[in-house]
Amino acid sequence: MNTEELIQSVRKARQASSQLALLSGRERNGMLQSFHDELMKQKKRLLEANARDLQKAGDYGLSEAMVERLTLSEKRIEEIAEGAAQLIQLPDPCGRTLKRWTLPNGLDIIRTSVPFGVIAMIYESRPNVTADAAALCLKSGNACVLRGGKEAHFTNEAMTDILHEVLRGAGVEEAAVTSILDPDRSLVHTLLTLRGLVDLVIPRGGAGLIRSVVETSTVPVIETGSGVCHTYVDKDADLAKALPVIVNAKTQRPSVCNAMETLLIHQQIAPECIASVFPALRAKGVEIRGDERVRALDPSVLPAVQEDWSTEYGALILSVSIVDSLEDAISHIRKYSTGHSECIMSENKETIRKFMNSIDAACVYANASTRFTDGFEFGFGAEIGISTQKLHVRGPVGLEPLVTYKYKIFGNGQIRE
Amino acid sequence: MNTEELIQSVRKARQASSQLALLSGRERNGMLQSFHDELMKQKKRLLEANARDLQKAGDYGLSEAMVERLTLSEKRIEEIAEGAAQLIQLPDPCGRTLKRWTLPNGLDIIRTSVPFGVIAMIYESRPNVTADAAALCLKSGNACVLRGGKEAHFTNEAMTDILHEVLRGAGVEEAAVTSILDPDRSLVHTLLTLRGLVDLVIPRGGAGLIRSVVETSTVPVIETGSGVCHTYVDKDADLAKALPVIVNAKTQRPSVCNAMETLLIHQQIAPECIASVFPALRAKGVEIRGDERVRALDPSVLPAVQEDWSTEYGALILSVSIVDSLEDAISHIRKYSTGHSECIMSENKETIRKFMNSIDAACVYANASTRFTDGFEFGFGAEIGISTQKLHVRGPVGLEPLVTYKYKIFGNGQIRE
Repeated sequence: MNTEELIQSVRKARQASSQLALLSGRERNGMLQSFHDELMKQKKRLLEANARDLQKAGDYGLSEAMVERLTLSEKRIEEIAEGAAQLIQLPDPCGRTLKRWTLPNGLDIIRTSVPFGVIAMIYESRPNVTADAAALCLKSGNACVLRGGKEAHFTNEAMTDILHEVLRGAGVEEAAVTSILDPDRSLVHTLLTLRGLVDLVIPRGGAGLIRSVVETSTVPVIETGSGVCHTYVDKDADLAKALPVIVNAKTQRPSVCNAMETLLIHQQIAPECIASVFPALRAKGVEIRGDERVRALDPSVLPAVQEDWSTEYGALILSVSIVDSLEDAISHIRKYSTGHSECIMSENKETIRKFMNSIDAACVYANASTRFTDGFEFGFGAEIGISTQKLHVRGPVGLEPLVTYKYKIFGNGQIRE
Repeated sequence: MNTEELIQSVRKARQASSQLALLSGRERNGMLQSFHDELMKQKKRLLEANARDLQKAGDYGLSEAMVERLTLSEKRIEEIAEGAAQLIQLPDPCGRTLKRWTLPNGLDIIRTSVPFGVIAMIYESRPNVTADAAALCLKSGNACVLRGGKEAHFTNEAMTDILHEVLRGAGVEEAAVTSILDPDRSLVHTLLTLRGLVDLVIPRGGAGLIRSVVETSTVPVIETGSGVCHTYVDKDADLAKALPVIVNAKTQRPSVCNAMETLLIHQQIAPECIASVFPALRAKGVEIRGDERVRALDPSVLPAVQEDWSTEYGALILSVSIVDSLEDAISHIRKYSTGHSECIMSENKETIRKFMNSIDAACVYANASTRFTDGFEFGFGAEIGISTQKLHVRGPVGLEPLVTYKYKIFGNGQIRE
């Protein structure tokens, strides 16, 4: 595929998008149902395609974790199908009246939610993302241009074929789901600069992938980011409450972005807090790295270096610092936060209020685990990631941010004086 | 100013932004009032600074229109002051509860509107934009980094000094309004890539400026765009209603982005429509360029060439095409629209519905002039431009899009299972 062919493909996707935008919510749900059904019927075909990719995994030098993510099984395919079917239950994000008002001159203005048009998804070698991204776009009335990792080539090809069958069955042009299977990297670069043809880019994957998309794209991007999440134990904290929250935030699933990486403790409560929290964390296998004041109270703690405060460990490691005041906690967080999720443990309402208002993050918690920052936990019924930027959507990205709006304005011959 | 100094300035602006974000709406309005008062008091100082810029306008080779935009007068300063004072009346965009719900586990989630933090504004040599941008940011609790055209250097310097007096009077760090007065262009490039320090970039100016910002910036951009706006006269149009709407859309202020550039006419109504509309347009000095079918009906019409259909004239020129059907009108608009404002003149409700749903533009009108696409006309009380992109804000950009939101989550020890 050369640049011109890519542009032609995206043009076709754009054309198909206007067809999709006119479908009813029921028709779009029908496609999700038939996608579910076809996935269940065509497991064998998907597994065969996946086996071809897995055979080549060695040539690509994939790590064990990457092979694991690439691998399909009957059970995984069923989960993917189930994911598509679950979207049917969610309310239609399109065609909602977001606001309506009438001007003194009689113009009736309706702000209505509508699909973006064409959404490009850039992701790694995870075939479930292909299915998930396409299903979210079908639900929200958007055409999609999918660019997954080359290591999933055959699986993505089979998945795309199934999606095309679904589209044909609904009388929609196949280009509504367009996969760019050619591994040439320059195609991604071109795709990311097709302003006017592509309305939105969503990168899904590791920090490197996201940064590269953000730096290249001239099309607007919804960026999902990393989390250096803090929990601050205030002098007015209830330690019996704090202990399980801290252990949960660090250890329940340490590899994800909403896990806690740094614990800040008010000096007045530090000896007591450390005495109860450190043993519990160590019992879960957590390595603790602390500043000098922490090590003065517990010499078995490893010394934290400057880099620790800005590191997303994604592992059972925790950095701990003792602070003199709420203000010190806030300024530590301001300095090192990635704007994801931050928590205060305190029983003092005024202290909580100050913390909530001063911390610049997508989610600011009082007395609960940062692990709740998640589209499903929030009740959104879907999740594309956690946005740590502030434009359009912040925090968990569900279905709602996959639509934009337009104004419909009804007049009776009004002119501007 | 070198790169390091620029980064230091933006860091200071960021620090000041957390101070601004904690002010009450009343305190922010107080600053707007004192900005108004200082502008009225310091007219002489501004006019002197402006005179220094105007002296140099020749060296910069400014066109007459550019000199006009650069020029301040007592009256203009009063208008600028009045603009700042008017913002006081608008509702506070910050601290609004946008959504609130409680999860089954008792977590109380509040989506609250909050300032972005630091907004960078890139604009041309229009001193009124300096005042306007700063006032909008003060109202919305954002720190701003202002980069105006070098031709307005002395005026911007004086305006910034006045803003700093206002900030000092309110006990806010001066860096809350930071002007980059050094003309070095590489500073703009650096500013546009300060992700994490700058939250949002808003370019204000001509298409070239906006394109260059969009192409350079890795910080999210709110893009305001150009308008190739169409009006389609359907076969079921009421021509008595259509005539004034068409004349208004083309001639009331032809230089702006919401003015009509192309008229599409259904063939069934074309002879009658042309007979009434063309003389009225010509009486207002409009040059008409048409396709062959138009010229067959009115041989005095100039021939339209391919380029005409995608040209934003910004002048008393109109391209006209006769189409066979609603579908043809829609596909013409899809091909050439910039997604700004499109209009149908029709008395047929089903036709209007189809047009409204099929056209992908910020504002879609039935039976009214496209000239209404404007923040003030829409009742937003402010306008930064018209967004023709679809992320975060579409159509007229008022005060509301200058804030983002965060989630405040109140718990009582909840952990994730």
